[in-house]
Amino acid sequence: MEELVSLCKRRGFIFQGSEIYGGLQGFYDYGPLGVELKNNIKAAWWRSNVYERDDMEGLDASIIMHRQVLRHSGHEATFSDPMIDNRKNNKRYRLDHLVKDQKADVIDNVYKILSHYQIYVDGEKSSNDRFAYSITFLVQNPKIASEVLKQAGVRDPFSGEVGDWTEPKPFNMMFKTTIGPVADDESYGYLRPETAQGIFTNFKNVVDSTSRRLPFGIAQIGKAFRNEITPRNFIFRVRELEQMEIEFFCTPGTDEEWHEHWLEKRLSWWEAQGVPRSKIEILDVPKEDLAHYSKRTYDLMYDYPTLGHEEIEGIANRSDYDLGSHTKNQSELGLVANVEENLDSIAKLTIPHPETNKPVVPFVIEPSAGVDRALLAVLSEAFTKETLENGNERIVLKLRPHLAPIKVAVIPLARNKAELVELARSIKNDLQKLGLGRILLEDSGNIGKAYRRHDEVGTPYCVTVDFDTVGKGDDATLTDTVTVRDRDTLAQERVKISELTAYLQAKLK
Amino acid sequence: MEELVSLCKRRGFIFQGSEIYGGLQGFYDYGPLGVELKNNIKAAWWRSNVYERDDMEGLDASIIMHRQVLRHSGHEATFSDPMIDNRKNNKRYRLDHLVKDQKADVIDNVYKILSHYQIYVDGEKSSNDRFAYSITFLVQNPKIASEVLKQAGVRDPFSGEVGDWTEPKPFNMMFKTTIGPVADDESYGYLRPETAQGIFTNFKNVVDSTSRRLPFGIAQIGKAFRNEITPRNFIFRVRELEQMEIEFFCTPGTDEEWHEHWLEKRLSWWEAQGVPRSKIEILDVPKEDLAHYSKRTYDLMYDYPTLGHEEIEGIANRSDYDLGSHTKNQSELGLVANVEENLDSIAKLTIPHPETNKPVVPFVIEPSAGVDRALLAVLSEAFTKETLENGNERIVLKLRPHLAPIKVAVIPLARNKAELVELARSIKNDLQKLGLGRILLEDSGNIGKAYRRHDEVGTPYCVTVDFDTVGKGDDATLTDTVTVRDRDTLAQERVKISELTAYLQAKLK
Repeated sequence: MEELVSLCKRRGFIFQGSEIYGGLQGFYDYGPLGVELKNNIKAAWWRSNVYERDDMEGLDASIIMHRQVLRHSGHEATFSDPMIDNRKNNKRYRLDHLVKDQKADVIDNVYKILSHYQIYVDGEKSSNDRFAYSITFLVQNPKIASEVLKQAGVRDPFSGEVGDWTEPKPFNMMFKTTIGPVADDESYGYLRPETAQGIFTNFKNVVDSTSRRLPFGIAQIGKAFRNEITPRNFIFRVRELEQMEIEFFCTPGTDEEWHEHWLEKRLSWWEAQGVPRSKIEILDVPKEDLAHYSKRTYDLMYDYPTLGHEEIEGIANRSDYDLGSHTKNQSELGLVANVEENLDSIAKLTIPHPETNKPVVPFVIEPSAGVDRALLAVLSEAFTKETLENGNERIVLKLRPHLAPIKVAVIPLARNKAELVELARSIKNDLQKLGLGRILLEDSGNIGKAYRRHDEVGTPYCVTVDFDTVGKGDDATLTDTVTVRDRDTLAQERVKISELTAYLQAKLK
Repeated sequence: MEELVSLCKRRGFIFQGSEIYGGLQGFYDYGPLGVELKNNIKAAWWRSNVYERDDMEGLDASIIMHRQVLRHSGHEATFSDPMIDNRKNNKRYRLDHLVKDQKADVIDNVYKILSHYQIYVDGEKSSNDRFAYSITFLVQNPKIASEVLKQAGVRDPFSGEVGDWTEPKPFNMMFKTTIGPVADDESYGYLRPETAQGIFTNFKNVVDSTSRRLPFGIAQIGKAFRNEITPRNFIFRVRELEQMEIEFFCTPGTDEEWHEHWLEKRLSWWEAQGVPRSKIEILDVPKEDLAHYSKRTYDLMYDYPTLGHEEIEGIANRSDYDLGSHTKNQSELGLVANVEENLDSIAKLTIPHPETNKPVVPFVIEPSAGVDRALLAVLSEAFTKETLENGNERIVLKLRPHLAPIKVAVIPLARNKAELVELARSIKNDLQKLGLGRILLEDSGNIGKAYRRHDEVGTPYCVTVDFDTVGKGDDATLTDTVTVRDRDTLAQERVKISELTAYLQAKLK
């Protein structure tokens, strides 16, 4: 992982946000290659989920939303993490991260003390479960928590000393901002913590403008913001993230079937991006750990290097909770989910039942993936260290061609020879017209360095224009041909310029 | 314009943000067709400015930025609008908008009163200039302003009565938010008011990772946020917007030449999107109106229906102001621009001079266009009302094919005939594989309605599968052919299914 992070910075995939002012924790900027990789991942998702289906519409809602949206979605009340302060230095931590980062003997102390409160009803619990139960108990018993942490000798990661810990308190993770010129109790909105809410609030607009009937989905890609107390693990847990979310609306009763459909579809999609099923564990989230809106959730846990299994996508059955929460006239609609009263919404979020034609609030299946996490998984799978026949080592990103930031690099063998550079430029222009993505004219003049660079950034093919190409080399039979080098096999083939676009188009499809 | 706005909502291009909770002023959501149109505009820009050039890199920086970035960029001090309050009802307005919206006689009163202060040095000033000078005078003389507005009888647009106006005060238009769990004087950031700053702060990262030399540019597309006091004119002046910005770095002394290069390039780009030069006025912004960073600026003023000439793109020569403001060791660098002292930056933002090889802070040419404004211009040009031969009227969006949200609609003539629907679906799938954009299976079963809808949303071609296609019609010679209808000419041609992909690919290229 450390090598991958270093490559990302060195080769222009990912930089720390606001770096020249010391950086901003939890914010990252995507460089010249990162933006292409990210756009390619998003395009692959959009193609598969919108273009290649006949039951999907797209959407792009605004990031800043009305406070009522996030109130009725349940985020104002429940989208929070427990935080705890050290009175000695006023540092603040997320409780579970603080405890997880302690040495093993300190964590054991916590468990020992907690056993007095008899919270381990089941001796068979795994260590993961034991940890989760302990944190839940501490959050639910704040007065005890403060004492337990001190007794167990939980140290402050900043000072290294045992802290004087306060009671844990919930901390809402939404970013808030004042809208309009007057800062008062009414004039604020939230940066959306998930793109999903923009879909639910536009449900009626989409149905009215497209005449969709059940079942159908709405797909959206966009930024979301979470004020994490302790952002960590490079681009895995950040404060500004990008999501690819689908809300798939279906008739109640068909939801479990659609849930399985989407689990299958999404696993194939990941496979097509080079993230194999064998590296993804499907977690059927236990009832007691489900989010407030969920009937059932599958978490796809990808086995990241160093980090281990972490969520790469969640596929939730959100029942009729969301549309039910955002609709007016809730009591008339026979909702299954337990929703808070809504006297603010001006829209009735129903659609005719496909059989009875009576208005119904559909169930929702939500496949929700993170763009940044996807990018990290794709890079992790692609990152390869190989020992070549000559004993040298090379780093190569074995990205699927459709994801590669640069599809082809066209390299004039010598930098100052106008003849070579002009021909290379004209070949680049011809290849660019194919619409395959970015084609790069690489005129650094050092072919060995160029190959090494393009291995490291995952360029599938390098095309070299040399003196033979322009009829000024040793071998006249090579005139009007170029060398095409394959990233993975390292094979070099001599191809006629007139056949080059067809040759590469076939390879890159 | 009113008809266009109504079409945008009805057909699913653009919805009011957070509409079901009464809407959030200045925020818009892009519906199923809007998101495609927007993505197509962005892709056309990226293709032209990144892929088809050899001197450009892409970037995608985060939206929330370190407060130091926006301090040293000059935005904390100067990114503000004058606002004024009515003491009678505590309503707040942007001064220039308040005055502009008054009846003609009230505005004349303002001018008359101001003439006592002898601010009209030049009797030849146009009415636009007179207005601008008056506002500038009022802002610079707040004590007088309050009195002038009351005497002139300036009315409150909300109450309709003459207001009791306060002195105008500057209002900073950046959205601010707390980052991290503690809200104190240090823990806040800004939502970027322009994407440009993410480019300047990553200048060194991009140079180091790509080995670029002068001249070269960095391009970025992304959201920006401006807390407008009075958002207005549909998606023209909004609080959440999207920008397409280039910062082109060049050797000092070559900047004026590059400025002309970019003016030319950008006008051709607009032309290729269907926004002709004849509708764009080039405003060479007068010295006294230039932004604080600008040596010279061309504003491209597009003639919007109803709104009149408004800025669609600004092409600014920003000199060495930005990199000079964000660099350390400013005094050693021979900066031309007048910059504030910077003791916070940890980076030296120089690059070797192409001739002398000595470190130099490059000049910057910035073509900066708004995605939302582009979309509104493109729609305005495409929106057409035609009287057909039969006397009927039709509305048609004559969008360039590469911008059309739906490239081809495949329509089975009857909804319940599985044979037609299945064939239509298989044709749709074949067309989708061409990678041209969205192909829609339109199975509403009403061909007249479908044509009307696809005219209104700008679909260049409709393909109809009828009973003849499957050999069950009157004319056996039509078996395995479909009808292709051209949006603009209304010509209907019978095309063999086997030749359809080639036929449409050629038309849509």
